[in-house]
Amino acid sequence: MSHNDLQPAFKIAEVVAGLRLAREDWRRSQHRTREPGGRELPSSEVLAEILRQLRGILFPMRLGPPDLRQRSEDFYIGYTLDQALNALLPQVKLELGHTLRYAHLSPHEIELRSHQIVQAFAVELPVIRRLLDSDVLAAYRGDPAAHSVDEVLLCYPGVLAVTYHRIAHVLYLLGASLLARMIAEIAHGQTGIDIHPGAAIGPGFFIDHGTGVVIGETAVIGRNVRLYQAVTLGAKSFPTDGDGQLKKGLPRHPRVEDDVVIYAGATILGQVTVGQGSTIGGNVWLTHSVAPGSHISQAHTRENGELLDA
Amino acid sequence: MSHNDLQPAFKIAEVVAGLRLAREDWRRSQHRTREPGGRELPSSEVLAEILRQLRGILFPMRLGPPDLRQRSEDFYIGYTLDQALNALLPQVKLELGHTLRYAHLSPHEIELRSHQIVQAFAVELPVIRRLLDSDVLAAYRGDPAAHSVDEVLLCYPGVLAVTYHRIAHVLYLLGASLLARMIAEIAHGQTGIDIHPGAAIGPGFFIDHGTGVVIGETAVIGRNVRLYQAVTLGAKSFPTDGDGQLKKGLPRHPRVEDDVVIYAGATILGQVTVGQGSTIGGNVWLTHSVAPGSHISQAHTRENGELLDA
Amino acid sequence: MSHNDLQPAFKIAEVVAGLRLAREDWRRSQHRTREPGGRELPSSEVLAEILRQLRGILFPMRLGPPDLRQRSEDFYIGYTLDQALNALLPQVKLELGHTLRYAHLSPHEIELRSHQIVQAFAVELPVIRRLLDSDVLAAYRGDPAAHSVDEVLLCYPGVLAVTYHRIAHVLYLLGASLLARMIAEIAHGQTGIDIHPGAAIGPGFFIDHGTGVVIGETAVIGRNVRLYQAVTLGAKSFPTDGDGQLKKGLPRHPRVEDDVVIYAGATILGQVTVGQGSTIGGNVWLTHSVAPGSHISQAHTRENGELLDA
Amino acid sequence: MSHNDLQPAFKIAEVVAGLRLAREDWRRSQHRTREPGGRELPSSEVLAEILRQLRGILFPMRLGPPDLRQRSEDFYIGYTLDQALNALLPQVKLELGHTLRYAHLSPHEIELRSHQIVQAFAVELPVIRRLLDSDVLAAYRGDPAAHSVDEVLLCYPGVLAVTYHRIAHVLYLLGASLLARMIAEIAHGQTGIDIHPGAAIGPGFFIDHGTGVVIGETAVIGRNVRLYQAVTLGAKSFPTDGDGQLKKGLPRHPRVEDDVVIYAGATILGQVTVGQGSTIGGNVWLTHSVAPGSHISQAHTRENGELLDA
Amino acid sequence: MSHNDLQPAFKIAEVVAGLRLAREDWRRSQHRTREPGGRELPSSEVLAEILRQLRGILFPMRLGPPDLRQRSEDFYIGYTLDQALNALLPQVKLELGHTLRYAHLSPHEIELRSHQIVQAFAVELPVIRRLLDSDVLAAYRGDPAAHSVDEVLLCYPGVLAVTYHRIAHVLYLLGASLLARMIAEIAHGQTGIDIHPGAAIGPGFFIDHGTGVVIGETAVIGRNVRLYQAVTLGAKSFPTDGDGQLKKGLPRHPRVEDDVVIYAGATILGQVTVGQGSTIGGNVWLTHSVAPGSHISQAHTRENGELLDA
Amino acid sequence: MSHNDLQPAFKIAEVVAGLRLAREDWRRSQHRTREPGGRELPSSEVLAEILRQLRGILFPMRLGPPDLRQRSEDFYIGYTLDQALNALLPQVKLELGHTLRYAHLSPHEIELRSHQIVQAFAVELPVIRRLLDSDVLAAYRGDPAAHSVDEVLLCYPGVLAVTYHRIAHVLYLLGASLLARMIAEIAHGQTGIDIHPGAAIGPGFFIDHGTGVVIGETAVIGRNVRLYQAVTLGAKSFPTDGDGQLKKGLPRHPRVEDDVVIYAGATILGQVTVGQGSTIGGNVWLTHSVAPGSHISQAHTRENGELLDA
Repeated sequence: MSHNDLQPAFKIAEVVAGLRLAREDWRRSQHRTREPGGRELPSSEVLAEILRQLRGILFPMRLGPPDLRQRSEDFYIGYTLDQALNALLPQVKLELGHTLRYAHLSPHEIELRSHQIVQAFAVELPVIRRLLDSDVLAAYRGDPAAHSVDEVLLCYPGVLAVTYHRIAHVLYLLGASLLARMIAEIAHGQTGIDIHPGAAIGPGFFIDHGTGVVIGETAVIGRNVRLYQAVTLGAKSFPTDGDGQLKKGLPRHPRVEDDVVIYAGATILGQVTVGQGSTIGGNVWLTHSVAPGSHISQAHTRENGELLDA
Repeated sequence: MSHNDLQPAFKIAEVVAGLRLAREDWRRSQHRTREPGGRELPSSEVLAEILRQLRGILFPMRLGPPDLRQRSEDFYIGYTLDQALNALLPQVKLELGHTLRYAHLSPHEIELRSHQIVQAFAVELPVIRRLLDSDVLAAYRGDPAAHSVDEVLLCYPGVLAVTYHRIAHVLYLLGASLLARMIAEIAHGQTGIDIHPGAAIGPGFFIDHGTGVVIGETAVIGRNVRLYQAVTLGAKSFPTDGDGQLKKGLPRHPRVEDDVVIYAGATILGQVTVGQGSTIGGNVWLTHSVAPGSHISQAHTRENGELLDA
Repeated sequence: MSHNDLQPAFKIAEVVAGLRLAREDWRRSQHRTREPGGRELPSSEVLAEILRQLRGILFPMRLGPPDLRQRSEDFYIGYTLDQALNALLPQVKLELGHTLRYAHLSPHEIELRSHQIVQAFAVELPVIRRLLDSDVLAAYRGDPAAHSVDEVLLCYPGVLAVTYHRIAHVLYLLGASLLARMIAEIAHGQTGIDIHPGAAIGPGFFIDHGTGVVIGETAVIGRNVRLYQAVTLGAKSFPTDGDGQLKKGLPRHPRVEDDVVIYAGATILGQVTVGQGSTIGGNVWLTHSVAPGSHISQAHTRENGELLDA
Repeated sequence: MSHNDLQPAFKIAEVVAGLRLAREDWRRSQHRTREPGGRELPSSEVLAEILRQLRGILFPMRLGPPDLRQRSEDFYIGYTLDQALNALLPQVKLELGHTLRYAHLSPHEIELRSHQIVQAFAVELPVIRRLLDSDVLAAYRGDPAAHSVDEVLLCYPGVLAVTYHRIAHVLYLLGASLLARMIAEIAHGQTGIDIHPGAAIGPGFFIDHGTGVVIGETAVIGRNVRLYQAVTLGAKSFPTDGDGQLKKGLPRHPRVEDDVVIYAGATILGQVTVGQGSTIGGNVWLTHSVAPGSHISQAHTRENGELLDA
Repeated sequence: MSHNDLQPAFKIAEVVAGLRLAREDWRRSQHRTREPGGRELPSSEVLAEILRQLRGILFPMRLGPPDLRQRSEDFYIGYTLDQALNALLPQVKLELGHTLRYAHLSPHEIELRSHQIVQAFAVELPVIRRLLDSDVLAAYRGDPAAHSVDEVLLCYPGVLAVTYHRIAHVLYLLGASLLARMIAEIAHGQTGIDIHPGAAIGPGFFIDHGTGVVIGETAVIGRNVRLYQAVTLGAKSFPTDGDGQLKKGLPRHPRVEDDVVIYAGATILGQVTVGQGSTIGGNVWLTHSVAPGSHISQAHTRENGELLDA
Repeated sequence: MSHNDLQPAFKIAEVVAGLRLAREDWRRSQHRTREPGGRELPSSEVLAEILRQLRGILFPMRLGPPDLRQRSEDFYIGYTLDQALNALLPQVKLELGHTLRYAHLSPHEIELRSHQIVQAFAVELPVIRRLLDSDVLAAYRGDPAAHSVDEVLLCYPGVLAVTYHRIAHVLYLLGASLLARMIAEIAHGQTGIDIHPGAAIGPGFFIDHGTGVVIGETAVIGRNVRLYQAVTLGAKSFPTDGDGQLKKGLPRHPRVEDDVVIYAGATILGQVTVGQGSTIGGNVWLTHSVAPGSHISQAHTRENGELLDA
């Protein structure tokens, strides 16, 4: 068998046909007719670039371009902001075009709504910056290993995750929930911290280490709350409707009040409240509300009773 | 001390010599003679690009290039598939050349086997697409936060991990287990979900959140199984041979039957079976088999007995 | 409303002004006067590229460029090392300029110290290579799924994390602790393994799977230690000074002696010692020292008493 | 004077203001009101990429991507063509929007015309390929230094210039004369051959060496014509209208009939005809028509009379 | 002979040694001692990028980024200008460090002079813009093929060459003559138009087609001058000093007064003056001054006497 | 007509079919059967990158990477040379596979010959460097506008063209004439200087300005020859064989002896000899040999007789 006999063996045309059949079956099952337009969905790559720009806009001298000087900050921010918003606009249009495809909106109405969303988003950026400043201070004050506020901003995955969350949350509130979710997953992929963009989080929020943290869609978190790795603020069970379909969007996650600390591995499930100033110990499994000022810990952290030294 | 005095200080030549000695010691210890050829091992960067192409091939209008139109789907898929397979072929040859280096195969035999692997891989792509469609539907149906099947495909790290797993598993079965493992680690790095490519997973598989999930090499998972973050399907202990060396490749992981749900943080170890339709609660530690229809939960999730309110 | 009416709506200038106010408030609150210089902080992007170069320098035929041949290894290493050190130098200067900004050092003194750090770092590279060889062997011997030492080097996130840690630890000891921390977070982002660069780790170290591992700044780990995913070597509580400020840098993490194995999910907190040859079981919560040769496991892993089959 | 004294010296804001004044003066002088839209003109960079794609489409196995195989030619061409046409469409719209900005066309009409132009352009591509095949053969037959038709296609600047001209000429005829001109200048920049896209050129056209060739807008060239470097087919004088403004677009360049050869440096000016089968010698200056079969040469090439050997 | 026998054949080390000997001979012959510093000379790649930025700064809506909008022009210009000047500064320092290496300047003095040059350069940019506007108008008015001033700016190589010349000329006057020359050669490479940066050129300058134009260092050109391709404004002979070395920098090129037109291929040599309003015909060879209002043409363009029709 | 009606209008499939027919006609006319392999011809892009590397290898501190230091020159050269030769090898194989496709060589023989060519090429690099040093000195000594040898190397297109020519000429002599020709055209495109790689050129060669220079395949040029722009060393007529086909490869271009100067625009045609030390004036048209020491000029440069001042 010669080299030439081998080469043509990849059955490209057959595989292309097989994939076409699979797509057609899917589209039929999803009641999607063949449409002439281009790609229908936003792009994570585009969003990642917009996020890179927004981080520079929010913290120009620390996360902006290496050759930036203070005298040119506003020029840099103005131009980069214009780029970022112009890049965001078609992504918003793609989302609205997709999610509202059964709403019979005209292209002009989608254009108009998209503009309003981007415009409203831009106005929130100074607010986001001030919130993030409070988060950076909280992290610096809460971690004995932190040497400076700048180290915190540069290094801490918790700060990165909260930066992206605060951006995503604004988009979520403005109705661009798919973009918001995509941004949350970009943060999740980079940090292992999974915050649903619907979660409402007060200022001075700090997550240390962070890998494995999960915060659900309807969670509400107060001021100056601190979380460690692998903390879950989740739902307990999912109500279904008469057809056995999940009911979507109902409140189902914890409310964490101001000044709460939740240690690594703690799991808090359902629409419970953790009262102001409480401390939840490591690995605690909590499915009921606790009063303000509570200190909850797992038995074995106190007694070590079940540790068997063999 | 002038600027010029400082500059030449990096002792490049000495460090180069020190590194050469370290490499020579390693090669001697591993009985590797000096060979004239080029890099001997596959490249993660090349695989990552192939994966990017395969995701576009599998879901052209959702994960393909932004300017794609339905009228050109087949052109895009055919050309990209040709590129991807031509890029995969030398990687397979590198793996076979490496893993079979003591098998005294001729270059032609390695070429021939590599072609067969790539060819067989290509033919599986439509099957993979159909399996992934079932996974996407399962995710959409299982998560109250999901608004559309498209959001699931774009955002969910569990779907990304399963996509890469299904690709890696085919390569694993075809004998390219190093490439398969490299692909699994690319997925692990992006999602925090660590599925060994040897694991056999049925259709309709959904992992929510996912960070910290570990699924071992010989795990077997049925249809419509759902997992949450930090679930481990691991091995209990590793048998060793007479020389104290680990015996490699033996079955040592759980079998999970159809319609099982395993909640966050559960750990299931060893060659146990989780019977059809069972539910394993959060943080459960399970090292024996459970019958179909079982509902297993940790004591404290029921009684909260060990939660001490201090 | 026409297309043209929509376009100018993004209020760039207003947002620029709002962001300027937020920055000025921050700088005032942090007592930072307006300075004419450029960006003050090191760059993660530059460090990531330096790390890419260093991995190639350390393992040229396995992680270096695809077209490298053994006959040219030293040329490649010498040139790439020169590039990497020249790129590292300005990053060290940025760190020293930042952290020593109240120390009234002359630019020449900063230049001199930076040179000394980079020079001392370079000399450690052969040592790092030999340590990493021991880590690779430990991983190969410890995992029944590993087929070759090369697979371990290419695929295992634990090996990647330890590679970056060993680099970061040298920089930490040399006084470039911000760069060290940034490198640690690059590794954390890629692997989910969070090792503080201050941790001292002996040869033959292996972390399997790894997602969720946290190792604190003052942890000390002996020879041939093996860890699994989600293991925490953390601090128990943070002492504060008279003003309620955290005291920074005190020893507060575990000491793990030679030949210890710590299974997934175990949490070890505080300045405790795990004696040589001990085994710590999965999910164990440990806050006291254990003697050499101990086998610690959680009760339920022995008795399953609290698993309720409903 | 310290480093810090130097840094802020670049007067960015002043220069920005000076440039703004200059732009405003220009816009006023050109009666251009301030408009809210984006960049108004096509992009040479985009056109250069489209040309790169078109060359691959026209000659896939010789100028296409290195990894292309014949079995995938049509996939490659179909997908690349779709990309190229989708990239061309907005460029055509930019041109029409610019050149027809006083014609009060609706956006829809511009969209419609642009589609028609791109569609008509695409249909011409097979015709262009056949013409270029005739040009390649003519070059191969006309140059004793050419070893193969493939060398001609890969190396000859004359072939590159004619490839771009045939593309530009189709766009010129379809009404996209600005894009056509931009393409001609891309060719001019790469080859030193300046062919106005309006020139009509028959099959079998060959320019050897080519640097300095200029062919004017209304030139007409027959079949199998051969030109050497620095040949000019230019206009003699430019008629002006009553206001002293140049009259634009009138025929003013030579007609060169079939089978003519024009040697290096010859200059032919005005609406003259070079009859079929004529030969025009090097450096000849010609401003009248010559009959078919003429052999024109400069005196000194025959007599060398004015060469003075000092 | 096996594959492995072939591979090591490239004698890298020998060639490296041969090249080292050649460099050492060169450095010895040029009296250059071995120095520890980095690359000593400016970079054409860096200059090309700076030129790309400057073209956008000068004509933002026509040559700037595609997504620019008028509302953000000043942000874009301010930020890009800051980048361009910061990139230019080290290039100026490299030039001064090189050309003044025997002048025993301190690094601080070179830094200071470099700042002054860059600062003075920036201030000239609005002047350059206004001159270029006059050039664009001249081109539009002078070419019957031009449809709009914008087409002229986008397409005409003469306009590109003059843009780069006006930038280079300012740098030449400020003492950065090596950078100026490098810029001139970038323009020459792109357009075939070779203008020495020393040449002084008035407003309203237009070169049509342009390939082969050469304008010498000490040429002086008035207002509203028009040139065609292959025109030379050169030197007649080079005076040498007593040692037979060329005397460098003396005036030796033509002076062209206002409103002169010089047709293609004309050669004007030496320190002659072409009086105001003169016309120099195609291919004319001129080595003496001509009075204002002269119309010079070659005999054969009038009489065709030496054209022999064979 | 709606937006959607417009979109599908590009008739991709029809154009693809039309292009396929055109290719099939071409292949039939060229007697090329359908073959399964990949692209058959070398790549200009790859060659351009190799040339970039070779320039750095030849002149590391002046044309190499900006961050290079003398202490690392040999590391840089060794590694880059290895890269360049490894990149050149497959290009040589592509050429030999193409040009020798009727010679029935085995793949192994082509591999062997290709290795020999690359090996022999590498050995010539120090020779090329020394020749180029002589060229740089000649340029510096011959141009009153040159301020330093380094300016000459950085800026002069003549030096770039000769650099590429000396590389191409070695490949031409070694039998890789297609690659040689492609390199010559890369130089031609960048400089407007068209030197056939077959031309034999002695040391100390200098071309000033250069645009429009053409030097033919069988030209022979001695030591210390100087040329100006638009000089042609061409062939007079092309002998044909009995079938009217051009005879390829016969000597047909001028021989220029040592120390000759040829001024701008001179045309020298045929197998004539320009004797040692001669000067050929601007625009001279020369088709016979001239004795050593001749000074040839065109009549009008002496008498201006035919310049008519109208």
